[in-house]
Amino acid sequence: MAYKLGQLAEWAGAELVGDPEISIDGVGALTEAAPGQIAFLNDPRLRSRLRDTRASAVLVQRKDRGLCAGPPPALLVCDNPRVAFAILSRRFRRLPEPAPGVHASAVVADDARFGADCVVGPNCTIGSGCVLGARCRLVANVALGHDVHLGDDVLVHPGAVIGADGFGFAIDGGRWVKIEQLGRVVIGDDVEIGANATIDRGAIGDTVIEEGVKIDNQVQIAHNVRIGAHTAIAGCAGIAGSTVIGRHCRIGGAAGIGDHLEICDGVTIAGMAAVNVSIRKPGFYASSAPLEPHRSWLRNSARIKQLDALARRLRRLEKAGGQGSK
Amino acid sequence: MAYKLGQLAEWAGAELVGDPEISIDGVGALTEAAPGQIAFLNDPRLRSRLRDTRASAVLVQRKDRGLCAGPPPALLVCDNPRVAFAILSRRFRRLPEPAPGVHASAVVADDARFGADCVVGPNCTIGSGCVLGARCRLVANVALGHDVHLGDDVLVHPGAVIGADGFGFAIDGGRWVKIEQLGRVVIGDDVEIGANATIDRGAIGDTVIEEGVKIDNQVQIAHNVRIGAHTAIAGCAGIAGSTVIGRHCRIGGAAGIGDHLEICDGVTIAGMAAVNVSIRKPGFYASSAPLEPHRSWLRNSARIKQLDALARRLRRLEKAGGQGSK
Amino acid sequence: MAYKLGQLAEWAGAELVGDPEISIDGVGALTEAAPGQIAFLNDPRLRSRLRDTRASAVLVQRKDRGLCAGPPPALLVCDNPRVAFAILSRRFRRLPEPAPGVHASAVVADDARFGADCVVGPNCTIGSGCVLGARCRLVANVALGHDVHLGDDVLVHPGAVIGADGFGFAIDGGRWVKIEQLGRVVIGDDVEIGANATIDRGAIGDTVIEEGVKIDNQVQIAHNVRIGAHTAIAGCAGIAGSTVIGRHCRIGGAAGIGDHLEICDGVTIAGMAAVNVSIRKPGFYASSAPLEPHRSWLRNSARIKQLDALARRLRRLEKAGGQGSK
Repeated sequence: MAYKLGQLAEWAGAELVGDPEISIDGVGALTEAAPGQIAFLNDPRLRSRLRDTRASAVLVQRKDRGLCAGPPPALLVCDNPRVAFAILSRRFRRLPEPAPGVHASAVVADDARFGADCVVGPNCTIGSGCVLGARCRLVANVALGHDVHLGDDVLVHPGAVIGADGFGFAIDGGRWVKIEQLGRVVIGDDVEIGANATIDRGAIGDTVIEEGVKIDNQVQIAHNVRIGAHTAIAGCAGIAGSTVIGRHCRIGGAAGIGDHLEICDGVTIAGMAAVNVSIRKPGFYASSAPLEPHRSWLRNSARIKQLDALARRLRRLEKAGGQGSK
Repeated sequence: MAYKLGQLAEWAGAELVGDPEISIDGVGALTEAAPGQIAFLNDPRLRSRLRDTRASAVLVQRKDRGLCAGPPPALLVCDNPRVAFAILSRRFRRLPEPAPGVHASAVVADDARFGADCVVGPNCTIGSGCVLGARCRLVANVALGHDVHLGDDVLVHPGAVIGADGFGFAIDGGRWVKIEQLGRVVIGDDVEIGANATIDRGAIGDTVIEEGVKIDNQVQIAHNVRIGAHTAIAGCAGIAGSTVIGRHCRIGGAAGIGDHLEICDGVTIAGMAAVNVSIRKPGFYASSAPLEPHRSWLRNSARIKQLDALARRLRRLEKAGGQGSK
Repeated sequence: MAYKLGQLAEWAGAELVGDPEISIDGVGALTEAAPGQIAFLNDPRLRSRLRDTRASAVLVQRKDRGLCAGPPPALLVCDNPRVAFAILSRRFRRLPEPAPGVHASAVVADDARFGADCVVGPNCTIGSGCVLGARCRLVANVALGHDVHLGDDVLVHPGAVIGADGFGFAIDGGRWVKIEQLGRVVIGDDVEIGANATIDRGAIGDTVIEEGVKIDNQVQIAHNVRIGAHTAIAGCAGIAGSTVIGRHCRIGGAAGIGDHLEICDGVTIAGMAAVNVSIRKPGFYASSAPLEPHRSWLRNSARIKQLDALARRLRRLEKAGGQGSK
């Protein structure tokens, strides 16, 4: 798998500063690439590393065009090097796209319907009433319950479970009585779902994942959640029942979002954050306590339990001293 | 699937205020239901919405009987509308219960034993010495290791793994030596286990889940844990080795409970809480830092590392001013 | 399965104080063991329990040899009772090691290669270019993507997914563009991987798990992470992309470690800790807020959002009083 640099520049829609005949046989990170590889420069902190890279070519923004006097490395000048790199990365896959079809070991309900060119990998199970759009791919060991609807170009990694029962019970004299989960899961176009992620069916209405959403490994999405278009959710995050998340949000790894909340469009949540209030304003939010050596953590975290009392004592001192607090 | 309201009232054990001939073809949430659907009113904050609902019938408590002058909506008056709703929800399942039997793609050890009317779905694996009670259902892609015992009416969702080895090692000159995990997993009647949940076998004795416990998706239960009857554990929670949890507890989503702890009966743990002490008193417990805009989180969370010093400085000021702290 | 105590002492490399003809038919915990069982004493807090144990034999350290006047219990005196117990535990497995071979229900790429005596259990899938060393075991329902390399003696529990795509996208006008994940997963000798754990393939280079690493259930390891030899990672922990963890580390349950960090050798991270900085010094680190009754948690956690302001007010008071802070 090797391409001429001129060909890559064309695929990337980039202006080439260098020899179009250079042969590129792989991709690399700017600081670790080997000769013959193409890298990209996006992070401004790495600008000084451009001159030293061993990569044969580098995708750069227009403003970074003058960073080195001339090749090597050859430069591919473009608007968005990371996007251009994403486009070129497809050319360097070792394996071809798998052929469309349902693997012999997959178990598919008679009434499931498929769009064109779907790939259902080994040991998948697909329940009654499922509908897959065109070019969907369930890689392997994926389980779809009944009445799961996937749009076009949905990619589901191994071990993901979509459409299991939501966690819904009524309590009757100390015993839990199951509430049947009667809704569906409805997933839009161009969604990717990570390994061992789980997305429950709705209790009454549907659980909805809008188009372009990207869900990482081991994410849990409870019944009746709605995720707005083009939101990305990193690994191990959990979203509790009936919460609505806006469009273009970014949920950090292992963040936990409570039930029946609303998160507006354009919100970024830090990793490990605990979200137990709705968020009405776009922006970057965090919680979590800081990492400390265990000994000092013991001392400081014990003080958290006294914080309200400390604040009251401070107020009392201020008053005694005739000082107002801001 | 449509029923006369009189029939539903009978199934729910409810008193009907309205026309028994009304046809009901589905369930809905009070605020979103369509005509022809039945809803329930449980949350007192929604009482004012009863008059406006488009639902044809609503399950209400006796005390809410007078909330609207008369039908519509028809009222089904009962002790516990949520429980009544749970009972009625079974009537509106689109699919019948799956027929008892073991799917051809499941792999079952020769010496596994089954009670009456079990359903073992596609791509399940069941190890040596497993015992399933009556009416158990492993939905799909479930793995039971050897010597896993399920009571009656246990429901296991796709991807759950029960009876894998616990995480037990001895350290020998910096290298881990495996301690064979020789115990079993013993699960009581009427337990539900969520998608991709994991319950490890005991190291020496058994891991025990008592009757009526409900376990959500991606919950991890380590070796030799015991969960008391009728406790519910929400998604992504993790319970470390040898911890004993009481009866009628509610563990919030993504809560983490340390090893070798004891949690008494009737404890509720908030989502995302870190539990590293035993709990001897029933009640509602929480930890986790509050969500903040990232900029203020940076400032405030840095201060947590100074908390003990701040408290000492406050004490010093109080002393200097002749004030005692409460 | 019963052995003479003399035989067990020989296997454990221990000095026997007691009758070598005693028959031992199982293992037990010191405080719960039954006659006929062998236990071990490691925890100094349990030293006083040695005299009361019902175990027929106990593995003890040399310094604990004098804790009871004489048998019962018989003593097996050795350097490391826990390691000796680990070694003996293998003798009490109810089931023999499974026979080498690939289960008929497993789906294995034609070009996958296996070392001697591998066991591939039911419903596993193994992608193109995978290489398994000698004596690897994939228990059941394990999915290996393409180009996953396992060393010798790697044990993978059910539901684990190794070699799914990392979570890599470029943002283009609000839409995510997939960056093909072109790297491999490379796993060393003697690694154990828990149920439903996930280890993603590298984006450009490889994701690397060095020899002797132990990974518990539901751990998530993102693309291009490197885990140093003999590190242990407890259940539900998550490690974000490109982070490098040293050798002989211990990562607690449900800990979250951010992306692009470096954790040096010999670091222990407490359960539920949020790690968002690199760690350059061996030691024990923690974060997480303390557990409290919900009512006081509400008061105290609200104060965390005022911490920076509180600290500034305290400083002002100190200045007004002519006091310097330490």
